[in-house]
Amino acid sequence: MSRIAVPLGALLVLSFGVAFAQGQETTPSDDVVPAYGTDEDLRRAAQDLFDVVLPAAPPADEAEAARRELGAKLFFDPRMSSSGLFSCQSCHNVGLGGVDALPTSVGHGWQKGPRNAPTVYNALFNGAQFWDGRAADLAEQAMGPVQAAVEMNNTPDQVVATLNSMEAYREHFIQAFPGEVDPVSFANFATAIAAFEETLVTPGAAFDRWLNGDDAALSAEQKQGLGLFMDAGCASCHNGINVGGHDYYPFGVVERPGAEVLPEGDRGRFQVTETAADDYVFRAAPLRNVALTPPYFHSGAVWSLEEAVDIMATAQLGTELAEADIAAITAFLNGLTGEQPQVAHPVLPPRTDETPLPNPFDLPLDAIR
Amino acid sequence: MSRIAVPLGALLVLSFGVAFAQGQETTPSDDVVPAYGTDEDLRRAAQDLFDVVLPAAPPADEAEAARRELGAKLFFDPRMSSSGLFSCQSCHNVGLGGVDALPTSVGHGWQKGPRNAPTVYNALFNGAQFWDGRAADLAEQAMGPVQAAVEMNNTPDQVVATLNSMEAYREHFIQAFPGEVDPVSFANFATAIAAFEETLVTPGAAFDRWLNGDDAALSAEQKQGLGLFMDAGCASCHNGINVGGHDYYPFGVVERPGAEVLPEGDRGRFQVTETAADDYVFRAAPLRNVALTPPYFHSGAVWSLEEAVDIMATAQLGTELAEADIAAITAFLNGLTGEQPQVAHPVLPPRTDETPLPNPFDLPLDAIR
Repeated sequence: MSRIAVPLGALLVLSFGVAFAQGQETTPSDDVVPAYGTDEDLRRAAQDLFDVVLPAAPPADEAEAARRELGAKLFFDPRMSSSGLFSCQSCHNVGLGGVDALPTSVGHGWQKGPRNAPTVYNALFNGAQFWDGRAADLAEQAMGPVQAAVEMNNTPDQVVATLNSMEAYREHFIQAFPGEVDPVSFANFATAIAAFEETLVTPGAAFDRWLNGDDAALSAEQKQGLGLFMDAGCASCHNGINVGGHDYYPFGVVERPGAEVLPEGDRGRFQVTETAADDYVFRAAPLRNVALTPPYFHSGAVWSLEEAVDIMATAQLGTELAEADIAAITAFLNGLTGEQPQVAHPVLPPRTDETPLPNPFDLPLDAIR
Repeated sequence: MSRIAVPLGALLVLSFGVAFAQGQETTPSDDVVPAYGTDEDLRRAAQDLFDVVLPAAPPADEAEAARRELGAKLFFDPRMSSSGLFSCQSCHNVGLGGVDALPTSVGHGWQKGPRNAPTVYNALFNGAQFWDGRAADLAEQAMGPVQAAVEMNNTPDQVVATLNSMEAYREHFIQAFPGEVDPVSFANFATAIAAFEETLVTPGAAFDRWLNGDDAALSAEQKQGLGLFMDAGCASCHNGINVGGHDYYPFGVVERPGAEVLPEGDRGRFQVTETAADDYVFRAAPLRNVALTPPYFHSGAVWSLEEAVDIMATAQLGTELAEADIAAITAFLNGLTGEQPQVAHPVLPPRTDETPLPNPFDLPLDAIR
C-alpha cells in the first residue's frame, strides 16, 4: 500500500482538473501513526512529493535586471490606483509574509473585497494565480487588481498615461524592454511587476534544509507532523515545490464547512468555468510561509492555524484528527517558513503636470484639484 | 538697506510667535533684480539665512541603533491602525518624498482628512510638527495620527497590547530601551518612530552643494531665483536649515487667497491656541524637496509649484511676480531636492493568537473574526 492517500500518478491525471481527495479512504487519526523508521525513509517519501525552494537566480541579463527594478517601483507605486492610495504592496505586503493580514482585502472606497489576499511569496511556483486560478501566470494576475473596481479601480489607459507622464518611468521601460517600438504598455507594466515578483522567493525553510539532508533541521514533532501530513492525505492536494498551489479541489469534499468559512455566495472556480463540477472548487492553497499568513481560507475566516488544519481534515478528508496530531501537523507547517526577502523600498519617479490626478472620491474629472 | 525684506533679528524675536511678513514693503517684481555680483556675495547672503543638511550621523550607541531599527518596523506596520490598513508609511511614503501625494490624506473608513500630509523628510529640523505646530517634536507627532479617528483610529492601549502580543516586538523594545522597567509603552513606541524618522534626511541637494562652495551646483537661473527668494521676502519666513518649518504666519498677510486654497473652516493655529492673533495662522512650510511634494498648502489645493509661488507672492508679500521671476524661483526650489533616503522595507514580526484582530469596519469586538 502506498504511504500516501492518493497515488501520485492520479495527481498528474487530475492536473488542473477537479480532484477528489478520497478522504473516505483515510484511516482515522488514531491509526495514522507515521512509522517511517529513519529520517532517510521519511525523506525519500517527502522528496517524491515536495521540492526545495532555492535562492532566486541571479539576473539573466541587463534587461531582466531592469525589468525587476522597474517592477519593484510599479509594485510599490500607489499612483497605479485611481485613488492614489493602493499599490500591489497594499495587499501583498513584503513585510507581512506577502499578504495584508486581513480576512479579505479592503479596496477602493473602503469596499470589502471578496477573498483573502494570497501571498505573493513564491507565487511564481503556483500552477495558476488567484484562488480560482483565473490568471495563468504572474503577469496576467498583475493586470487584475489594478482594474478591479473593488481594488485599485484603475484602467489600462490611465495606467499607461500615468507612466508616460514621468520621464523616469519612460526611460525605465525603454531599458527594461529594449528594442520595442512601444515599451510603455499595460502588458509590459504587468511583465515588469511579474519580473519583480519572481524574485520574492523564500528559500532556507527548515523543511528545505531537512529535505536537503540536515536531519536536525526539523524537530521530532515536525517529522511526525510531516508523516501525518503525507499519510492522512493532506499531501494529496498540498504537494510540489509550493506544498500546494497547482491543482483545484472542491472545498468540502467530505463535509462542507459552515457558511462563515465557506460563504454560499462565492462558488469559486465555477465563476470562471461555469461548469457544475467546479462548484465551490478552489486552488489548493500553497502552504509555504503559511504560519505567517493568517487568516486562512479564501474567506479569511479562520485565524488559528490549528483550527484550519482541523477544518481541512474534517472537510476534505473526513478525519477527526487528535489534538496531538493537529499540533504535530501545525509544527510541520511552521517549518515551511523560509527566509523572508530583503526588499529595498524604491524611490519613485516624481509626478509631472501631465500625471493624472488621484481621485479617491470618484469626482467628475473637472472637479478634481 | 538689508537685502532681505525682514531683518533676521526680527525673526529671532518672532520665533514661535506670529510674524507678519511685511509684504507691503517689498518692491514690485520688476524692480526685484538680484545684483549680488559674484557667487561669493550671493553665498554669503544665503549662508546667513540657510544651513546645509548633512548626511545622518552614525548611530550614537547600540540602543539608539536599536531604536531606529524598531522605529522602522513600527513606521511600516499597518497593524498599528485599528483597521490593519494604515501605517505611518501610508501618508508619509518614503518612496514619494515622504508624503502621500494627495490633496489631503484619506484615513480610516475612507474619511477625507483635513490637511495635506507634510513630508517626514528632514522633519526633525522643523521647529514643531504639524501645520499648526501642535506637537513639539517627532515623538509627540507620532502619537497623533495613530489615535486620530480620521487617520489610524487606534488607542494607546490597543497599540501596546498589539506590541506585547508579539515576542519579537517585546525583545526589540527591551534592546531599544535598556534598563527600563516597562519598555513596551506608547511613549517608547513614539520615541522609536522618531528615532527612525531622524534618519530620514536628504543631504546633497544642489543648493547644499552650492552653499558648500560648488559654484556650478546651481544654474544661473537658480541663482537668480535664490536672489529673488531672498529679496522679494520669501526667505523672511522660509529660512533656516529646512528653508521654513520653524515659525508661524497668517496665510494671507496681504491678500487672503480664495476659499479653495484657504478653506474657511480650517483656522489653523487658532484651533490650538484659541488666540485671535492665531486665526488662519500656519507654520511656514519647510521647502526642502518641495518639488517632490505636490500638491501644496495645508489644503493641498494647488498642484503646480509655479502657481504656489505666485499665490504666495500675492497673498504674503503683495507682489505680482513676473513669469520669469516665478520660473527662476521655481528653478531655485527645484534645487532643494536632496538625495532621497534608501530605506529597506522591514520584515515585521508575525502575529500571535493574542494579537488584537484588525477591525476595518468597526464591528463589535465579538463579531470580528
